[in-house]
Amino acid sequence: MSVLELHPDRLFPADESARSVARRLYAEIKDLPIISPHGHTDPQWFADNEPFDSAADLLIKPDHYVFRMLYSQGVPLESLGVPTVDGSAVETDGRKIWRLFAQHYSLFRGTPSRMWLDYVFKEVFEMNTLLSDATADEYYDRINDYLAKPEFLPRALFDRYKIECLATTESPLNDLRHHQKIRESGWKGNVITAYRPDPVVDPDFEGFTSAVAYLGELTGEDTTNWDGYLAALRNRREFFASMGATSTDHGHPTARTANLSRPECEALFAKALAGKCTAEEADIFRGQMLTEMAGMSVEDGLTMQIHPGSFRNHNKVVFDRWGRDKGADIPQQTEYVNALQPLLDKYGNEPNLTIILFTLDETVYSRELAPLAGHYPALKLGPSWWFHDSPEGMRRFREQVTETAGFYNTVGFNDDTRAFLSIPARHDVARRMDCGFLGRLVAEHRLPEDEALEVAKDLTYNLVKKAYKLD
Amino acid sequence: MSVLELHPDRLFPADESARSVARRLYAEIKDLPIISPHGHTDPQWFADNEPFDSAADLLIKPDHYVFRMLYSQGVPLESLGVPTVDGSAVETDGRKIWRLFAQHYSLFRGTPSRMWLDYVFKEVFEMNTLLSDATADEYYDRINDYLAKPEFLPRALFDRYKIECLATTESPLNDLRHHQKIRESGWKGNVITAYRPDPVVDPDFEGFTSAVAYLGELTGEDTTNWDGYLAALRNRREFFASMGATSTDHGHPTARTANLSRPECEALFAKALAGKCTAEEADIFRGQMLTEMAGMSVEDGLTMQIHPGSFRNHNKVVFDRWGRDKGADIPQQTEYVNALQPLLDKYGNEPNLTIILFTLDETVYSRELAPLAGHYPALKLGPSWWFHDSPEGMRRFREQVTETAGFYNTVGFNDDTRAFLSIPARHDVARRMDCGFLGRLVAEHRLPEDEALEVAKDLTYNLVKKAYKLD
Amino acid sequence: MSVLELHPDRLFPADESARSVARRLYAEIKDLPIISPHGHTDPQWFADNEPFDSAADLLIKPDHYVFRMLYSQGVPLESLGVPTVDGSAVETDGRKIWRLFAQHYSLFRGTPSRMWLDYVFKEVFEMNTLLSDATADEYYDRINDYLAKPEFLPRALFDRYKIECLATTESPLNDLRHHQKIRESGWKGNVITAYRPDPVVDPDFEGFTSAVAYLGELTGEDTTNWDGYLAALRNRREFFASMGATSTDHGHPTARTANLSRPECEALFAKALAGKCTAEEADIFRGQMLTEMAGMSVEDGLTMQIHPGSFRNHNKVVFDRWGRDKGADIPQQTEYVNALQPLLDKYGNEPNLTIILFTLDETVYSRELAPLAGHYPALKLGPSWWFHDSPEGMRRFREQVTETAGFYNTVGFNDDTRAFLSIPARHDVARRMDCGFLGRLVAEHRLPEDEALEVAKDLTYNLVKKAYKLD
Repeated sequence: MSVLELHPDRLFPADESARSVARRLYAEIKDLPIISPHGHTDPQWFADNEPFDSAADLLIKPDHYVFRMLYSQGVPLESLGVPTVDGSAVETDGRKIWRLFAQHYSLFRGTPSRMWLDYVFKEVFEMNTLLSDATADEYYDRINDYLAKPEFLPRALFDRYKIECLATTESPLNDLRHHQKIRESGWKGNVITAYRPDPVVDPDFEGFTSAVAYLGELTGEDTTNWDGYLAALRNRREFFASMGATSTDHGHPTARTANLSRPECEALFAKALAGKCTAEEADIFRGQMLTEMAGMSVEDGLTMQIHPGSFRNHNKVVFDRWGRDKGADIPQQTEYVNALQPLLDKYGNEPNLTIILFTLDETVYSRELAPLAGHYPALKLGPSWWFHDSPEGMRRFREQVTETAGFYNTVGFNDDTRAFLSIPARHDVARRMDCGFLGRLVAEHRLPEDEALEVAKDLTYNLVKKAYKLD
Repeated sequence: MSVLELHPDRLFPADESARSVARRLYAEIKDLPIISPHGHTDPQWFADNEPFDSAADLLIKPDHYVFRMLYSQGVPLESLGVPTVDGSAVETDGRKIWRLFAQHYSLFRGTPSRMWLDYVFKEVFEMNTLLSDATADEYYDRINDYLAKPEFLPRALFDRYKIECLATTESPLNDLRHHQKIRESGWKGNVITAYRPDPVVDPDFEGFTSAVAYLGELTGEDTTNWDGYLAALRNRREFFASMGATSTDHGHPTARTANLSRPECEALFAKALAGKCTAEEADIFRGQMLTEMAGMSVEDGLTMQIHPGSFRNHNKVVFDRWGRDKGADIPQQTEYVNALQPLLDKYGNEPNLTIILFTLDETVYSRELAPLAGHYPALKLGPSWWFHDSPEGMRRFREQVTETAGFYNTVGFNDDTRAFLSIPARHDVARRMDCGFLGRLVAEHRLPEDEALEVAKDLTYNLVKKAYKLD
Repeated sequence: MSVLELHPDRLFPADESARSVARRLYAEIKDLPIISPHGHTDPQWFADNEPFDSAADLLIKPDHYVFRMLYSQGVPLESLGVPTVDGSAVETDGRKIWRLFAQHYSLFRGTPSRMWLDYVFKEVFEMNTLLSDATADEYYDRINDYLAKPEFLPRALFDRYKIECLATTESPLNDLRHHQKIRESGWKGNVITAYRPDPVVDPDFEGFTSAVAYLGELTGEDTTNWDGYLAALRNRREFFASMGATSTDHGHPTARTANLSRPECEALFAKALAGKCTAEEADIFRGQMLTEMAGMSVEDGLTMQIHPGSFRNHNKVVFDRWGRDKGADIPQQTEYVNALQPLLDKYGNEPNLTIILFTLDETVYSRELAPLAGHYPALKLGPSWWFHDSPEGMRRFREQVTETAGFYNTVGFNDDTRAFLSIPARHDVARRMDCGFLGRLVAEHRLPEDEALEVAKDLTYNLVKKAYKLD
């Protein structure tokens, strides 16, 4: 059995001169509070404060990073207990599922999942041996024991993790009852929402038409016409803001934006409601809605996040049987320079607008995103995202973005996760990689160490607060 | 005259902490047998076991890595003795050709050709001074002397190189007589074939129609209709498998696949046979044939290799005078996510199918290939290929692929070469670069050294055997 | 107040084994003369030899690298004194502008602008404290004082900078009077011109038709017909060559080339003159003109530079108020393999033609440019350009280009700047980064140090002289 160790110097550059700087910088920022401005944790956890599910339910079944890797090596999703759309039978014995995972743990060597999991195993569950076939049962029992204890309840972990602010993501149709309950509970944890209107602005979203109708009911606006529809969206933004939201989020297939005339908007909206958009028209409509959302952000100050470029549910067999978010979302080439121009023509020079751009296509870091963000007042760059939320991904991001956009057109780290337990692990990776990058700049005499320390603090804490208006 | 030296630490990271790990890992794997599952050596060499050609004929005239660089700097191909299509005169004096090469040897500084050649010069021909104008004649004489000795015959070198298995690549029309002869010779060397059907599945291939007709003759199938054509291809796969083949190989301009209805297939095949396909239709036909080949692989278990993305024979002047493979194949942007979907819809979840993807477009490593291979059971990633079969290319491959696909969705190294003498040199570069990458992970405390050693063995030996079903 | 220091080891790799080699190589090449074969300094400076403008006028208002970053962070261009197109009021108090810049100096951390500026502040203006709010006035006064001294006149700085040759860039319509004056002045400084025909070969250029008419007047050719037009272009090339030009320069949106028949050329030219080209036709016309220019280069020996891929003036609001070159040029994806083929079919194998390719799209380094330049005798690769004229950009360029194209298909460094004071700073960065790259190759035993030293000299001095025919 191998020892499970989290080395204090992990992720720092191997070279001692850069590493020693990284170590000093990290010592100064490692205990700064966590701000998690974008993620997918379930607010009900913090509203109800019930114990988390047991090991397999918490750490395997819902984590597509984990089961996609096992699936890619021939492990059936059924055997991992991933629930099917039609409720047909899958493995239900949590211990068997956990053992299967443990047997395949070597597949994760060199991946961020391995680092996040090891961190959680060590720091949260106090394991001292590596997960393997031999230790599977010990892990399984320990995790389940711990999860039943009061100090592992959601709110207790939130507090222990020193989370200053955590944003969840909800549809405008959500009544935010869990957020309401948290607010009324007296607990001090700062859990806020973010406004994600995809279901009511994307004609290709399942149930778009009825979602828009329901939006009308919720708001008392007539969402069968363009003005009423915009008013309803504005109304829900206000409600979300009143529940703490400081941002909106937009997960589109492309970065396309549009700036149509009013009659064109009306006609396209009617077509969308009637379910008669072509694929191209649906893309234009989504693009128009990004521009509309930017306009509303100029009014209400919500920071806007654009997350384009994923080909969702690429595997039809898996989608039909298991549904969305099963590890089969594949990035695609994504163009920003022409795509964003209509929006930027209208709002790109607004000094009080903040649009945070994300990408799954790393080729645009130096070619498109850094030059855009290094010029337009309204644009900032989100951290390396999803598949690139990883040590090498973060390194490439800083190397390719900094020289053109600087540090100050970036916005700190997003964990973007539903794996609540791993939040400190993920922020820790980002902090270490940023300190490592700065350590190299200092060791190469490209930045004095006192300035690097200021930058490290800004990247960890100040920039995210500013970009998401959390101060 | 400069010393020719192969430093024992060459290619390891400069940083001593990473280097010392790399050194330890390499010591454990450097003597593992070579498995070369994909390459272009000539089986006749091993069948007839005649001495190799002399220096210029062996090392310059057939090596487009070498003469493309000289040509790019204004050295005429005629002066290098590269044979013309029409047989018009070129330089025939091997010594003059060799001297010209030696005079320009500095052009190769920083290239993998330089590393491979120096390795061969030192390890095979026991030279101790660097190739230059001053040493050209000594080299020329030494190489020619050595090549005439029995211990430099093809089979002797094969054995000395500790090659456990070597695959060549042949057209389905090939009678595999050389492989037959090797098998009957009593020599123990394991030389197998691979099935490369481009000439009979690509309507743009010179002589496609007559090749398909000949395929019919060979197999006794009626290849003028779709069913007979497929039966003939299947028949030859069986024959190749009986001669040791465990894989097929597909060198297409794009990664496009298709999944047409039977009547569409029949109609398109008829058009292809009639030589009436448009460029677009030819591409669809090739795409359909990839899907057909995948289906046959599900039946017969042959591992499938897809090598897309080369714009062949870009230089028309060179092509007209010297023909194919003259260093003028230029990579192009290559898309995989949409291109592969038709095939993956049909066969991507087959647990016993292995499709190995290669690319000349490094932008897809992290964006497309790693996410695809990190999900689909049927997909694996081939090593960095051709122009990227180089130290920096290998480093980028591991850095960009590992975090999403892990190590275990890759398949070890391919030398892909016709330069038989350089095979150990090429495998040695890959082994060193993998150990260097792992050394950095260990030095940065991202992977324990005992696990890194397991990975090093897997990358060198176990994964290739598994992916190509060579155990 | 922080110390302003230029560390002697800056930009060298952190690892001591690579750094010590870099240090030795750099010591041998740091004092080689500067050759600046491509840039945008104003020849009038050297013709009239008047003092440079004061601090804000010299270092802020004309430098889009500087004000784009400030603008991206919400600093209005008006407050930086950037002159408007309509002459409407902007800040005129140089000291206020300078203070605003100083207050925001931390934005440039990690950018090349910071390195270039610090170099100029220290080496030229002898400042010993870092620029900040606290030191703004001291800087402002010092710079203005120094600029008034005779040893800071343009010619004195040119001599002090050890510039062996400096090329400016002019339109064929320019009368080169400043170059004439320099030549007649008796001053020994070698300032030459380069021929940039964009205004008379790009139908989309403002005033194309009248520019072509004026070209006719200047040359006595009838530029209303194709033959006369070509003759006029040829005539101006001769004039430019007589004033020292050894190169032409072409800044096109794409790398497209064309090879039309004569009647097609005539018809398209007529359409262009009539202002009736579609966007597509204008692109074809520009592409045809690249091929025509290559043909003239075969005749007159001028080296050809192609700089494609910038989406100019992306920000319409800024363009309307401030005009061109205001930091809103954004790179786009750029394709070379198909785009260049028409030109290469005709002239790619000409041994005496040199075409230097640049790119803003780093994805083509390894995929397209290195394979093209590693084969075609006519092609060479320019250094990493514009946004990529930076330490990380240079590192990526060498890492991605060298293994396929070698060092000898590259052409040394271009500063491409109008910021005359920063020329030595920029060349110094390139020299240090090249020595660092070579240092790593030596430390990793991939190149002997004596050969690395030869390469360092070639990259710094010999290759640029050869490529631009400056010997």
